[in-house]
Amino acid sequence: MAKSAYEYVRTFEQDDRLLPGCWIVLRVDGKGFTRFCEEHKLEKPNDGRALALMDASAEAVMLAFPDVRLAFGESDEYSFVLPPSTKLYGRRASKLVSLVVSCFTATYVRRWAEFLPETPLLSTPMFDGRAVCYPNLAVLRDYLSWRQVDTHINNLYNACFWALVKGGMDQAAAHERLKGTLSSHKNELLFSEYGINYNEIPARFRKGSTLIRQRAEVRVKKPDGSWGVREKWVLQVLHVDIIGNQFWEEHPHLVEP
Amino acid sequence: MAKSAYEYVRTFEQDDRLLPGCWIVLRVDGKGFTRFCEEHKLEKPNDGRALALMDASAEAVMLAFPDVRLAFGESDEYSFVLPPSTKLYGRRASKLVSLVVSCFTATYVRRWAEFLPETPLLSTPMFDGRAVCYPNLAVLRDYLSWRQVDTHINNLYNACFWALVKGGMDQAAAHERLKGTLSSHKNELLFSEYGINYNEIPARFRKGSTLIRQRAEVRVKKPDGSWGVREKWVLQVLHVDIIGNQFWEEHPHLVEP
Amino acid sequence: MAKSAYEYVRTFEQDDRLLPGCWIVLRVDGKGFTRFCEEHKLEKPNDGRALALMDASAEAVMLAFPDVRLAFGESDEYSFVLPPSTKLYGRRASKLVSLVVSCFTATYVRRWAEFLPETPLLSTPMFDGRAVCYPNLAVLRDYLSWRQVDTHINNLYNACFWALVKGGMDQAAAHERLKGTLSSHKNELLFSEYGINYNEIPARFRKGSTLIRQRAEVRVKKPDGSWGVREKWVLQVLHVDIIGNQFWEEHPHLVEP
Amino acid sequence: MAKSAYEYVRTFEQDDRLLPGCWIVLRVDGKGFTRFCEEHKLEKPNDGRALALMDASAEAVMLAFPDVRLAFGESDEYSFVLPPSTKLYGRRASKLVSLVVSCFTATYVRRWAEFLPETPLLSTPMFDGRAVCYPNLAVLRDYLSWRQVDTHINNLYNACFWALVKGGMDQAAAHERLKGTLSSHKNELLFSEYGINYNEIPARFRKGSTLIRQRAEVRVKKPDGSWGVREKWVLQVLHVDIIGNQFWEEHPHLVEP
Repeated sequence: MAKSAYEYVRTFEQDDRLLPGCWIVLRVDGKGFTRFCEEHKLEKPNDGRALALMDASAEAVMLAFPDVRLAFGESDEYSFVLPPSTKLYGRRASKLVSLVVSCFTATYVRRWAEFLPETPLLSTPMFDGRAVCYPNLAVLRDYLSWRQVDTHINNLYNACFWALVKGGMDQAAAHERLKGTLSSHKNELLFSEYGINYNEIPARFRKGSTLIRQRAEVRVKKPDGSWGVREKWVLQVLHVDIIGNQFWEEHPHLVEP
Repeated sequence: MAKSAYEYVRTFEQDDRLLPGCWIVLRVDGKGFTRFCEEHKLEKPNDGRALALMDASAEAVMLAFPDVRLAFGESDEYSFVLPPSTKLYGRRASKLVSLVVSCFTATYVRRWAEFLPETPLLSTPMFDGRAVCYPNLAVLRDYLSWRQVDTHINNLYNACFWALVKGGMDQAAAHERLKGTLSSHKNELLFSEYGINYNEIPARFRKGSTLIRQRAEVRVKKPDGSWGVREKWVLQVLHVDIIGNQFWEEHPHLVEP
Repeated sequence: MAKSAYEYVRTFEQDDRLLPGCWIVLRVDGKGFTRFCEEHKLEKPNDGRALALMDASAEAVMLAFPDVRLAFGESDEYSFVLPPSTKLYGRRASKLVSLVVSCFTATYVRRWAEFLPETPLLSTPMFDGRAVCYPNLAVLRDYLSWRQVDTHINNLYNACFWALVKGGMDQAAAHERLKGTLSSHKNELLFSEYGINYNEIPARFRKGSTLIRQRAEVRVKKPDGSWGVREKWVLQVLHVDIIGNQFWEEHPHLVEP
Repeated sequence: MAKSAYEYVRTFEQDDRLLPGCWIVLRVDGKGFTRFCEEHKLEKPNDGRALALMDASAEAVMLAFPDVRLAFGESDEYSFVLPPSTKLYGRRASKLVSLVVSCFTATYVRRWAEFLPETPLLSTPMFDGRAVCYPNLAVLRDYLSWRQVDTHINNLYNACFWALVKGGMDQAAAHERLKGTLSSHKNELLFSEYGINYNEIPARFRKGSTLIRQRAEVRVKKPDGSWGVREKWVLQVLHVDIIGNQFWEEHPHLVEP
């Protein structure tokens, strides 16, 4: 097509390629989700349906962008990890961030009714995104540990807070009651006052969701019409500890550069 | 909340604040929309319903982010203009790009059924985004002119191409026929062979969509129950020339820094 | 020449081109000059010889890089201004910063003995550098005004401080005496206690140095051996106000984009 | 000191901190050194005095900035390596680049007469600089290998070229003669036609200069006036292979993050 005299304006676009050789984390965060949750009367402290929708949206990202090696999500956020070797979109930050955010958001809206069929979508959910480079596996794992520790801290706090509130305390008093308490105090409060053993709360809430691809046997129809079994890479959602070494030792393909 | 030893990973986030004093353009582009349009059997060369959905998605962005001064859209793309003075999200590129893309995408999916009620959404539409700084009004206007010239070039070409194809030519032959033709040839072809006066094609297709806020009189109910009229800023979609001076002279509030 | 398998490491170099259409300021700052001045027993509050060497170093930069439109210096710093249209070194920040710093430093060392013939150079003077973009003339002028106001504030303070110290006060007491004083107090102190009329202090100290190119008549030898006069661009060092409009109106070529 | 209304211009300075956790290479390159060498009639293909001055300038950088772990130089360039853990100047690229360039240039000028006492400095030598991040030791070593391979390729070529030219061939013919030749051809040419065994050319020319700190015994005067021996870190200039593993195994302190 013909080019116009205005085309020079493209020279104002600045290069935002991420440093080669680094792990890339793309993190997606809900915008104003405290209000969004209230508006849609989501369950407190955790709404399993909404979390499952987050997981489904993250799965869509991993299917659309096979370079995404692993994803970790909790609450209204999800982190997507690309390996040092990825050349996806020339590693341009804005391309990567925007497409992952767009895919995530579109899926969240598209599948809302499937996960929360009795809750009409009343406003437009939005997610922001950012890209961060981590130069080696140790610091990437520290990043993921940071998010999973955050999951634990928030979830324990929220478990106590909503136990108190559901028990009749007003929200300000509940915050006051929990101010400065240690984890051990909160565990004790849950157990002695509400009979809740924190470790029996579903792992999904305590550990967040980790999405990876794993080899699995899949039933396939053969050309002759009979059924057989074939090994394939399939997406799996795990709710496990990713801070310790065990997870990483069990999935060595995750850490290949 | 307590902080973990892993929190140091935040220091790897790099500052991406856009230069103060510059106009900011955030452009959103459909990913793989050629295929997306075919899959959904959208009308060629232009599908008014799909374009109206694009406009509605852009309106949602302008309502969610009042700092957006103007938007210009055509085909599967939309550009959003923020003034030099904006401090929205500290002018951080990734925040701005991701939130605009997220809002746009979410609205596109949410309102799809309203604009294309007989066409089920078969796949997930995605948009990428980027941020570009323009240091003065002249170059910002050149940017917008670049996009509107592009609208014209593409639309004229597509009008001819689909006239030929609907007239029975195969797509490769139609491309061949148009190769190297000037605008005047294409206008002549449309008129003499298909009786189409290019200038009578709807302005929406020839000029794209320009969204601005304008003062308008709005009917309001007064406290005493009677009806009155009040002036308010309202969003308007225009399909007009934005290359010449007239548009800018008529809307002086658009160019305030 | 043959390329080696290691050449891929060049892909780690990141693009640092400065935004087109903006004024570029390259500022050079002495590193640890308080100590450097003491070590070389430079005169206080201002050493005319050292300032002249700074000016000579800045002239060398303007001669080596004709795209530098204007330079402003004071104390141990110098700012070099390039116009929006410059394409010097593709506007790459590190190229521009490093070459200007290198040229400045080299000249400072090379010509030291010429300006301070009785003071051997005892240590290695160093300058850091940075590049800043300013999107329009108004903010560029504000930048230069910022530096010239700084010149004034520092010079007035130092004039008082060294008057007190030379008058026998120790340095801590002199700082204490000046703490929180307004300009008017300092002017009064200089005049009433030391008989110094601040406005009679040389303009070089009060206004800093501004280097520009001006048309001037130069004597030239003609081919026939006789002498004539020709107009040429020549560098000039001025010690004038550059905050007000007069300077800019008198030198309209400085502000061309 | 008082702040002026113009101070807002500082907000236009953009953050250029280099990614934490990466090795930083600061490379200094001579500007127009082909001409500079001709102008000063430096010896061809290598001038030992000029190379020693380069080494001395690099030593000055390592003394001024103890965070510099290693330096490698050849011809008119020098690379300085900082470890991933360095926090020097907050890892700001322009600070690091400009100060290293300034220190290098200043020393080059300051000590010129010491290394080339019979050659007056006729023009101002300048060096440009850049900063590059390398996320791990493997790629850092590839960077250094790239430079040392380059040293070898250039030196072998230049050895042949200047042998031919000193043997009476004009420069264009010499370039033509060498076009497309392999290393083996060049070694053969040197040996059979000029009796030069390439491997007997001084290692300084073939391997470049590597500066590191090593523990060494230094004679020190004790308080009682007698002499003793103490271990200290001292700078050393080596002309050795740094591509293979041996060098790195012998100096394990170089690779600590």
